[in-house]
Amino acid sequence: MKIPSKYIENAVDQIASLPGIGKRTALRLVLQLLSRSKEEIEDFSNSFTLMKENVKHCSTCGNVTDMEVCGICRNPGRDKSIICVVEDIRDILAIEATETYKGVYHVLGGIISPMDGIGPNDLNITSLINRSSTGSVKEIIFALSATMEGDTTNFFLYRKLKGFNIPISTLSRGVSIGSELQYADEITLSRSLLNRQPFEV
Amino acid sequence: MKIPSKYIENAVDQIASLPGIGKRTALRLVLQLLSRSKEEIEDFSNSFTLMKENVKHCSTCGNVTDMEVCGICRNPGRDKSIICVVEDIRDILAIEATETYKGVYHVLGGIISPMDGIGPNDLNITSLINRSSTGSVKEIIFALSATMEGDTTNFFLYRKLKGFNIPISTLSRGVSIGSELQYADEITLSRSLLNRQPFEV
Repeated sequence: MKIPSKYIENAVDQIASLPGIGKRTALRLVLQLLSRSKEEIEDFSNSFTLMKENVKHCSTCGNVTDMEVCGICRNPGRDKSIICVVEDIRDILAIEATETYKGVYHVLGGIISPMDGIGPNDLNITSLINRSSTGSVKEIIFALSATMEGDTTNFFLYRKLKGFNIPISTLSRGVSIGSELQYADEITLSRSLLNRQPFEV
Repeated sequence: MKIPSKYIENAVDQIASLPGIGKRTALRLVLQLLSRSKEEIEDFSNSFTLMKENVKHCSTCGNVTDMEVCGICRNPGRDKSIICVVEDIRDILAIEATETYKGVYHVLGGIISPMDGIGPNDLNITSLINRSSTGSVKEIIFALSATMEGDTTNFFLYRKLKGFNIPISTLSRGVSIGSELQYADEITLSRSLLNRQPFEV
């Protein structure tokens, strides 16, 4: 694919640098951008520089925010004694959408993944230990991905936190609601058999 | 989905304004951007404003170019008497990739599509008529999409151009090379039967 303009080529390379976007898709998106007005393109470009300049990470939990402390940590209605440990702010959005959690969060900023070169020192683990050491925390919930990396991180965190004698829980694993049993994988199915719950009416 | 920063929300809206990108994907891309350095984000943003400022449309054929006239129209090795009419510069890239066409192009900038509010006046048709009226053109090839809109545009162009007595051709329609006959749709198959070609060894 030989693009006849080095400026378009550069814009395509920038869009294609985003995860999961190939060169062909990037060209389609860039040509759509090119058809917009100068002002629209300036608004598009400025949105990213403005974001980088203004978005901060909450000094308590690591969530993104426009202030010093995020809206969840500032909310007096949230229970500060329960901390839910997540990988990424998208997990906060997902949990908030359930409207069933009233505690606060702690964003690790990733999970331990030696394959991607991410070790414990690249994550916000020290601040979690500091929060847990104050004596005001009554429960810590691990809400990481149900993957090998998530389990490794859970285990690492458990070893760091067990000294504080705070109850630690993880999200329950099992068959997804609405899914058919025959399509559940073996590990999930065997786990949900082992962790079977009393039937409630 | 309630994003806890209006700057991130704005960036997500901008990315989600691109065709085929939803809010969820946009958030994933924006968070990846946010994790980059200030300089990287500036390079990202500037690529679009620089493109808008510098990319021109070739005064002859409408192709994108950094100069006044595009590389294909400037190339003395290209046959200026054959014009291939395409919808969009991506079609030029596709035809150029075949390395079998030595003529020049004319980019319409779209096809007639009443459903999308695109009429003949929104396309570069006048300049095609001007090019065809010079007497130096020996063949015009319609290389538009094999869709209802493409056929409508072909017919409209044909009526505008037939007065010049220039041979007009369209791309051949038929069964794609490498595809199995049983999966070809009925219209394609009946067309490729009607337009059957002498067998060549």
